[in-house]
Amino acid sequence: MTRIGILTSGGDCPGLNAVIRACVLRGSRDHGQEFVGILDGWRGLVEADFIDLDWMSVRGLGKLGGTILGTSRTSPFGERGEAGGVAHIKANLRSAGVDALIVIGGEGTLAAAQILSSHGVQIVGVPKTIDNDLSATDYSFGFHTAVEIATEAIDRLKTTGESHHRCMIAEVMGRHSGWIALHAGIATSAHAILIPEQKASLDQICDWVQQPFQRGRTPLVVVAEGFVSTEMTQPHSERGLDAFNRPRLGGIGDQLAPIIEERTGIETRSTTLGHIQRGGAPSGADRVLATRLGRAAVDAVKDADWGTMVASRGTDIVRVGLEESVGRLKTVPPERYDEASFLFG
Amino acid sequence: MTRIGILTSGGDCPGLNAVIRACVLRGSRDHGQEFVGILDGWRGLVEADFIDLDWMSVRGLGKLGGTILGTSRTSPFGERGEAGGVAHIKANLRSAGVDALIVIGGEGTLAAAQILSSHGVQIVGVPKTIDNDLSATDYSFGFHTAVEIATEAIDRLKTTGESHHRCMIAEVMGRHSGWIALHAGIATSAHAILIPEQKASLDQICDWVQQPFQRGRTPLVVVAEGFVSTEMTQPHSERGLDAFNRPRLGGIGDQLAPIIEERTGIETRSTTLGHIQRGGAPSGADRVLATRLGRAAVDAVKDADWGTMVASRGTDIVRVGLEESVGRLKTVPPERYDEASFLFG
Amino acid sequence: MTRIGILTSGGDCPGLNAVIRACVLRGSRDHGQEFVGILDGWRGLVEADFIDLDWMSVRGLGKLGGTILGTSRTSPFGERGEAGGVAHIKANLRSAGVDALIVIGGEGTLAAAQILSSHGVQIVGVPKTIDNDLSATDYSFGFHTAVEIATEAIDRLKTTGESHHRCMIAEVMGRHSGWIALHAGIATSAHAILIPEQKASLDQICDWVQQPFQRGRTPLVVVAEGFVSTEMTQPHSERGLDAFNRPRLGGIGDQLAPIIEERTGIETRSTTLGHIQRGGAPSGADRVLATRLGRAAVDAVKDADWGTMVASRGTDIVRVGLEESVGRLKTVPPERYDEASFLFG
Amino acid sequence: MTRIGILTSGGDCPGLNAVIRACVLRGSRDHGQEFVGILDGWRGLVEADFIDLDWMSVRGLGKLGGTILGTSRTSPFGERGEAGGVAHIKANLRSAGVDALIVIGGEGTLAAAQILSSHGVQIVGVPKTIDNDLSATDYSFGFHTAVEIATEAIDRLKTTGESHHRCMIAEVMGRHSGWIALHAGIATSAHAILIPEQKASLDQICDWVQQPFQRGRTPLVVVAEGFVSTEMTQPHSERGLDAFNRPRLGGIGDQLAPIIEERTGIETRSTTLGHIQRGGAPSGADRVLATRLGRAAVDAVKDADWGTMVASRGTDIVRVGLEESVGRLKTVPPERYDEASFLFG
Repeated sequence: MTRIGILTSGGDCPGLNAVIRACVLRGSRDHGQEFVGILDGWRGLVEADFIDLDWMSVRGLGKLGGTILGTSRTSPFGERGEAGGVAHIKANLRSAGVDALIVIGGEGTLAAAQILSSHGVQIVGVPKTIDNDLSATDYSFGFHTAVEIATEAIDRLKTTGESHHRCMIAEVMGRHSGWIALHAGIATSAHAILIPEQKASLDQICDWVQQPFQRGRTPLVVVAEGFVSTEMTQPHSERGLDAFNRPRLGGIGDQLAPIIEERTGIETRSTTLGHIQRGGAPSGADRVLATRLGRAAVDAVKDADWGTMVASRGTDIVRVGLEESVGRLKTVPPERYDEASFLFG
Repeated sequence: MTRIGILTSGGDCPGLNAVIRACVLRGSRDHGQEFVGILDGWRGLVEADFIDLDWMSVRGLGKLGGTILGTSRTSPFGERGEAGGVAHIKANLRSAGVDALIVIGGEGTLAAAQILSSHGVQIVGVPKTIDNDLSATDYSFGFHTAVEIATEAIDRLKTTGESHHRCMIAEVMGRHSGWIALHAGIATSAHAILIPEQKASLDQICDWVQQPFQRGRTPLVVVAEGFVSTEMTQPHSERGLDAFNRPRLGGIGDQLAPIIEERTGIETRSTTLGHIQRGGAPSGADRVLATRLGRAAVDAVKDADWGTMVASRGTDIVRVGLEESVGRLKTVPPERYDEASFLFG
Repeated sequence: MTRIGILTSGGDCPGLNAVIRACVLRGSRDHGQEFVGILDGWRGLVEADFIDLDWMSVRGLGKLGGTILGTSRTSPFGERGEAGGVAHIKANLRSAGVDALIVIGGEGTLAAAQILSSHGVQIVGVPKTIDNDLSATDYSFGFHTAVEIATEAIDRLKTTGESHHRCMIAEVMGRHSGWIALHAGIATSAHAILIPEQKASLDQICDWVQQPFQRGRTPLVVVAEGFVSTEMTQPHSERGLDAFNRPRLGGIGDQLAPIIEERTGIETRSTTLGHIQRGGAPSGADRVLATRLGRAAVDAVKDADWGTMVASRGTDIVRVGLEESVGRLKTVPPERYDEASFLFG
Repeated sequence: MTRIGILTSGGDCPGLNAVIRACVLRGSRDHGQEFVGILDGWRGLVEADFIDLDWMSVRGLGKLGGTILGTSRTSPFGERGEAGGVAHIKANLRSAGVDALIVIGGEGTLAAAQILSSHGVQIVGVPKTIDNDLSATDYSFGFHTAVEIATEAIDRLKTTGESHHRCMIAEVMGRHSGWIALHAGIATSAHAILIPEQKASLDQICDWVQQPFQRGRTPLVVVAEGFVSTEMTQPHSERGLDAFNRPRLGGIGDQLAPIIEERTGIETRSTTLGHIQRGGAPSGADRVLATRLGRAAVDAVKDADWGTMVASRGTDIVRVGLEESVGRLKTVPPERYDEASFLFG
């Protein structure tokens, strides 16, 4: 009987629990597999912090946000270095009688999984990124939920903007890719969508804001947290000075608001949606995707298809090499951004 | 300048207004096209009941459910027959100076569009089916919204079932295909998903109900309205006797409830979600899909790519021949149904 | 140390778990009380089916729909009769070392509680009715949630009605009182609100439907399940013939639809919201009310204020005698119904 | 025929449009009144910027967030001073043939209305405050919606906190009163609720955070924007230095997060819910309240009951003198705050 360890790593994402549930239910019912939960991502693997996961313990998890296994941003190798780290992990797996790993995580996590795989650890990956920026998968769970939450929140901002004749800015997640901003911006008919992949000048942004205002509309700007205007010397930093060398007052939305207000004369307010985009119950679409991925992962384990990850392609769930999601982000291509541009201004 | 008539036909579907808006905005801003709204589907075309649609009139429609153009299930040809009907429609279009048609509808509507196209009417189709049963498109707008609404509603039913130790049945839409039932059933961890494509016996259904009950769980059955059990002599009819030759008390859910209760001894309640699945604001995902399709439709008009329809394939929007969606439904394939079976019982 | 048994009885209602949680947290933290959960309402009391309830076991329950204790519509006395039943219950309480009872339920449950109280059982009541029809309390938990769910669902029905130029009927809960129909009807601007407390003729109803239709609006009728028109010989029955002596096709909404359609010529569709109104996560308002009531109940136990129930009055939580909620329903007074009448027609 | 001007003033609030609709429908249908919309609050009155408001123009407004009349924070008197301002306004009303005013606004707006009333302007007030801090009314529309939105958002934050073992801080609205924080905090089982009315030390807050963490729970802090800890020298200011004399990084939540993290060693994240709390569709409860208040306001006009405002008391809508809401805020009384304290820590 195969004994499988499962870990979730990186930022929280709606659907993690649905993946775990699907792995355990499918594996224990149909493949006779056994499961071990590894706590808090790589930390639990390094420290051999495991719990049993049986059928009963995962019932009802489908709609629960977050991950019952906990997560962290710990590296699997740390001070031991890669060679020492791998040996240490292998010893921990052997002691616990764990034959295979299912690793649910983003680009960094999957890169580490690939290293472990290259050292002979029997491993299958499940892509996880709320930002939808992993190559090799069309969509990733969590992303759909984030878009729905952002859409609902921005719908709300719009009526306040209209009542006060204000320009409203909504800052959404997306440090390196603008998928959430693109989708939520299209869904809410934003007059400007600002994403890391597409530079825009302050003049351009202010023009997009002024056009609808002159038609009697309320300008709406949806901006991804990683957006950088052409005038900025750097992406906004976490602390200290902002990208315009002024004391930092928050994210990019908070930085843009006073500039737009000053240049256009239109009262401007910014809201940072923040963590509400990544918590809570997954949408129906994400529960389906997560369940299908979890099922496919234990099927790959059964087939001993090591070093692969499961991915969404069209309406299918497929297996691809772990390397396909490592080393390059799936950013918004220019033609997808252009698709939205008829809404601008 | 091209003057385009737009019509929406068939059952209501969240996202229709978003398609209309995208057509008009994109077409008038980027292609110099003009737009005419055709009221209540084919009826407005037959009776030359048109309204002007300009840029201003479609702003704000993205999140509005339903269709501002109205819809109906009227046939375009009627008593005039195909030849007479086509001639009549062509005359109406000529009188109104309409050069091209964008037709948003399901299988029947697209079949009629194909006939018009074969008679030289310049036409582009947009697939619309809340049931997701059109060939040639991976997903259709409205479907995502229906799944989210059904998922939320079924989540609610589950806690009531648990409090009363009841089996809960949720009847969702799907006369000929079970996509909504499949997705909402996976999302809510149904113990049985019953769809038109897959016969199941009452014994099988009762077994799926009894298993979770014996584990102390609340059985959940998600059934598509078009499901037929192996014992049934016919699909349930609209009026009169039901498929078990008893006075009909409602849909298939209402028919199954007393049978399950009688056979298993488990108190059983059925809820028919009905029209709430097809009304109201579209989800973010459907707004994005509808907007992309509407944009692509006027681009096809600009390219004079007549007789085509726009469709979703993977992450792309593509053009296919109208005939691809006509004559055969996209039903749930057995392997997709099997994917969910590890949740059953 | 006081040892308190808690039971939930009657139909499911969002907020039951929040009451249980508040009792246990407040009681164990601030009053040194101990708690016992009585399973499935009176059944668990009669059959001595108890579980321990400590602080840890109720954490996280605030937002969970339903009741972890289960519920039933069992009578506490049954075949033993009142005298025998009371004696049996007292013996069960004594055996389990339970000093006091907190009983969460509706009119029937509170009447039984009053009988137990009159026989010396130390008892405090918490009013529970999703229909909001208990005297002595301004509002009851569950009602707010039901109104929000019904409002959202009816919002959705309206856009479908508009697209198809149909009259839409929404049947909501309310067998004996029309509070949900009144509030949801006002919230959704219904053209007719039909409640058990106010007879209306079919002529009147059809007139209310025709007026908005002639103005180009979509008629909306919100009807409580217990409504009886002046022409009806009886309230609709569960099975068999309907109130118009035709084979019964469902609830009052399903009965009205064909009649309205026939008389007005306006296509009419009915949706029965059903169990989704009483399941699932409570609204914020209901969580607050339920939490305050639960806290107040254990405070009443601490004060040995037996035979009372806690209730909402204005912004306060007060104690009243159990008898205040027994024997008469809080129906919608004519002046509250008249308040809505400017929306009609 | 009485001709009534309506204005909405101050911050946006869900339910404003429902009040406007109820005024116009009730007044025009039942009292033969006529209506004039005054644009952007007092600004429109000072500048005689009016629009016609008839029955048709307000249909469908019940669920629409914001105010179709626009709003502003302009003072009605401005440079003209009180005497000159009043005379100017009276002249504007006379010119437009407006006999009476319905003024929908908060404490400042109602104070100005009282002054106008004392100078003979025929005026009726409708209380509007999303913070629920107006004396003379039990609850105000907008507040219920804000609590529901905050509750949903905080539910989402909690699962992220649990996955990462973080302390989560949610900053909600409430500059001078903590009603939203109190209700949303109870609804989400916050381990600390921090409101302007109740000072708390950083030691106390950190203690509340550490206790649940040691039990393996995720600490949740709900803080009103106007909260001031005992160590703070001043409420947080809009710009510049914060209350701890460090460069200001945002609201009170953003200020508390690093302090809590440093003192407790628990990773802490803050989210400011911001404008999403005041925009968008009103909840069912707020639509009902707003509709009842609007209806009552035109009834007061019909009765020439000048200088009054309509208010919610228990389940009733009553009339009180405008002065009752002027000059003192309805803050959270200590006993209401104490009611929540059993959840803390």
